[in-house]
Amino acid sequence: MSDITIEQLRQKISDFAAARDWDQFHSPKSLSMAMIVEAAELVEHFQWLTEEQSQSLPDGKCAEVENELADIFIYLIRMADKLDIDLLNAANNKLKINAEKYPADKVRGSAKKYTEY
Amino acid sequence: MSDITIEQLRQKISDFAAARDWDQFHSPKSLSMAMIVEAAELVEHFQWLTEEQSQSLPDGKCAEVENELADIFIYLIRMADKLDIDLLNAANNKLKINAEKYPADKVRGSAKKYTEY
Amino acid sequence: MSDITIEQLRQKISDFAAARDWDQFHSPKSLSMAMIVEAAELVEHFQWLTEEQSQSLPDGKCAEVENELADIFIYLIRMADKLDIDLLNAANNKLKINAEKYPADKVRGSAKKYTEY
Amino acid sequence: MSDITIEQLRQKISDFAAARDWDQFHSPKSLSMAMIVEAAELVEHFQWLTEEQSQSLPDGKCAEVENELADIFIYLIRMADKLDIDLLNAANNKLKINAEKYPADKVRGSAKKYTEY
Repeated sequence: MSDITIEQLRQKISDFAAARDWDQFHSPKSLSMAMIVEAAELVEHFQWLTEEQSQSLPDGKCAEVENELADIFIYLIRMADKLDIDLLNAANNKLKINAEKYPADKVRGSAKKYTEY
Repeated sequence: MSDITIEQLRQKISDFAAARDWDQFHSPKSLSMAMIVEAAELVEHFQWLTEEQSQSLPDGKCAEVENELADIFIYLIRMADKLDIDLLNAANNKLKINAEKYPADKVRGSAKKYTEY
Repeated sequence: MSDITIEQLRQKISDFAAARDWDQFHSPKSLSMAMIVEAAELVEHFQWLTEEQSQSLPDGKCAEVENELADIFIYLIRMADKLDIDLLNAANNKLKINAEKYPADKVRGSAKKYTEY
Repeated sequence: MSDITIEQLRQKISDFAAARDWDQFHSPKSLSMAMIVEAAELVEHFQWLTEEQSQSLPDGKCAEVENELADIFIYLIRMADKLDIDLLNAANNKLKINAEKYPADKVRGSAKKYTEY
């Protein structure tokens, strides 16, 4: 059970930026840069691991990865807030689009999308 | 008001992958790559815009950006699921860490963190 | 005048990896991750700057940016070496493709490619 | 043997931008975004491949990867040009720094840097 809702997080993050007068830096252009920087910090944890190693991280590493996911999520919420987008609904809609784009009976097994190289 | 919770999204995304037998591709290493690719598709929308332009996107562009945010969110949820991480709690904890790292009264105005170049 | 050629750099980088027995880590998949991590370190220097600020970096910052560009270049050379690609010829060929894709008299001024949003 | 030098490429790329009046878009901030977008297109080719598969690409895929490397290289050269940086010397200097940071006899075999997780 989570201790907080995404809407409460949105508010907290907005207050956090306001208290620091950081709103002026948070254009969508700059926020997209901050988000990809965080995504890269996640990638960095996995770059030299085998896929198998990446599936069973030691505890210390796992805590670091958790913080990277958190950072990405925070910027994602911030960006959505700035653009007045409901993240949950957006993801839900996108899943419907994906379901039509990749019909299970067509891509299963062969997993065409992934191996068409 | 959102039509779906993050927990319901997590389940939907998990079912989506299972129905396509895509679990085999979803190592944290590979998922981190997929996530940064989506983050870059977001960056691409803003790369040649001025910061001001990025703040007032035309409608069509805004819908595309919404889908990019959705894609990042979907992979974020998927990755967290695979690593047994509660995204909401992780973000909440990270905000506490950030609050200590950047005390409002020290970084406000000067916005030291951002301009220390 | 540069003190070294790209071919000499390729050899040096290859020797560097061999001396450390790091070849085993350098699959194209993992190298692509390392390269985007370096690209993100470059982005990080610019994320909170205005475009104007990014055009006149103070000396210390400029030296850091130079090292980030170097890191990207090193992985680029390494990756090309692994895949037996001549980087100079590849870029030259790509410029020809780009010239056909973006005819100067069509995109000039309006800069369509960049502003078609 | 390459058909062109890096200096000739720099000039060609500069002329290409000038002919299209694209200089106005090429702030270091925006160029860093364009470069990471290209780096992500490279990552995309490898995201669902195993490391082994990434080591033996079919011909068609290899040609695409070559173009992605070329795109990264082109933006790298452009960025260095804008910042008045000699890429070859920068990489050469960085290799010296790396050699001190990772002494071969200390990191060989154990490859500490890579596996310290």
